[in-house]
Amino acid sequence: MNLKDAIRQVNNFPKEGILFYDITTLLKSADYLNLAIDKMAEKIQNIDFDLVVCPESRGFIFGMPLAYKLKKGFVPARKPGKLPYKKVSKTYDLEYGSNSIELHADAIKPNQKVIIVDDLLATGGTCKTLAELIEDMGGKVAGIEFLIELKNLGGRNFLSNYKNVLSVIEY
Amino acid sequence: MNLKDAIRQVNNFPKEGILFYDITTLLKSADYLNLAIDKMAEKIQNIDFDLVVCPESRGFIFGMPLAYKLKKGFVPARKPGKLPYKKVSKTYDLEYGSNSIELHADAIKPNQKVIIVDDLLATGGTCKTLAELIEDMGGKVAGIEFLIELKNLGGRNFLSNYKNVLSVIEY
Repeated sequence: MNLKDAIRQVNNFPKEGILFYDITTLLKSADYLNLAIDKMAEKIQNIDFDLVVCPESRGFIFGMPLAYKLKKGFVPARKPGKLPYKKVSKTYDLEYGSNSIELHADAIKPNQKVIIVDDLLATGGTCKTLAELIEDMGGKVAGIEFLIELKNLGGRNFLSNYKNVLSVIEY
Repeated sequence: MNLKDAIRQVNNFPKEGILFYDITTLLKSADYLNLAIDKMAEKIQNIDFDLVVCPESRGFIFGMPLAYKLKKGFVPARKPGKLPYKKVSKTYDLEYGSNSIELHADAIKPNQKVIIVDDLLATGGTCKTLAELIEDMGGKVAGIEFLIELKNLGGRNFLSNYKNVLSVIEY
C-alpha cells in the first residue's frame, strides 16, 4: 500500500497555478489513515518529547492521533481570536500581507520538549514562526514532522536551525 | 481521575456573558487526553459504522484519534472555501446571520454509516445541519458524539431525530 496512491492532486487550488495535495481522499480510507499515522509515529517514537504542538486546522488532524498513540500532551496553535485565555502570539510575513499564530501563555512550560506536527511542508513559514514562539516561551523544539514534503519549495532549508525535520511522503 | 478537573472555565468568551469550557488544559496533559479519547471510544465502539465526520476545527481534535483507534475513515466538514474538490454544502441560521458547512461530494457513499464527532454540544445547530447534509448524500447517521454536553441549552432535543446522541461530560 502506497500512501501517494490515496492523495488526490487538484490543479489551481487555492489559486491559479497551484497544485494542491488533497489529503481527504487518504483520510476517508480507514486503511490509509491508519498507515499514515503509524508511519508518522514510527519516525518520532524514539525521540524524547512531551508535547505535540500543531497549527490549525489540518495540523490537528495528524497531531492528535500521534499524541494519543504516543501518550503525549497536545497543544493547538491557533489563528488570532480563537483561544480563550491569556495568549502569546507571533506574526510572520506572507507574499502579500502577514499572518499571526497564537498559543496559550501557559501551554508550554520552560524546558518542555515539543514536536511540531503539520500536514504539509511547503515554504515552512508557519512552522518556523511556531518554533520560534515555542522557544520564546522556554520550550525546546525536539522535532518537526509533516505527512507531506514539497521538496522543490526549500522549506527544509528554511527550518535548518531545527533537528529532526521529518516527512513521510515527498514530492 | 475526573475529566472535569482538567477543563478550564473562562468567563465572557467569546463574548460578554458566555462561560467558555476550555479543553486546551485537558489536551496538554497526556493522561487526561488519553482518558478523554478512551472514554469517547468506549461509548461508540459497539456501534456499526464506517466513517467519523467532524466539523472544523475542534471536532478534528477528537474525531481523528477516534477514527485511528477504531480503524474507521475520517471526513472533515469545513467552512466555505477550504475544500479543494467538488463539494456539497448546507447553510444554517445563527442568532445573527448564517453559516455554511461543506463536504466533498465524494466523501460519503450511499448507505455508509457515519458517526459525527464534535467537542461540545450547545444548541446542536452545526451538527444537525451536518447530519442533514450527510443524509442528503445518502449516508446514514449512526450516532453523534461530544466530549462535553451543556444540558441547559437543549441541544439533545434539537437532535432528537438521531439515535446514539452521546456525551462524556455533562454540565
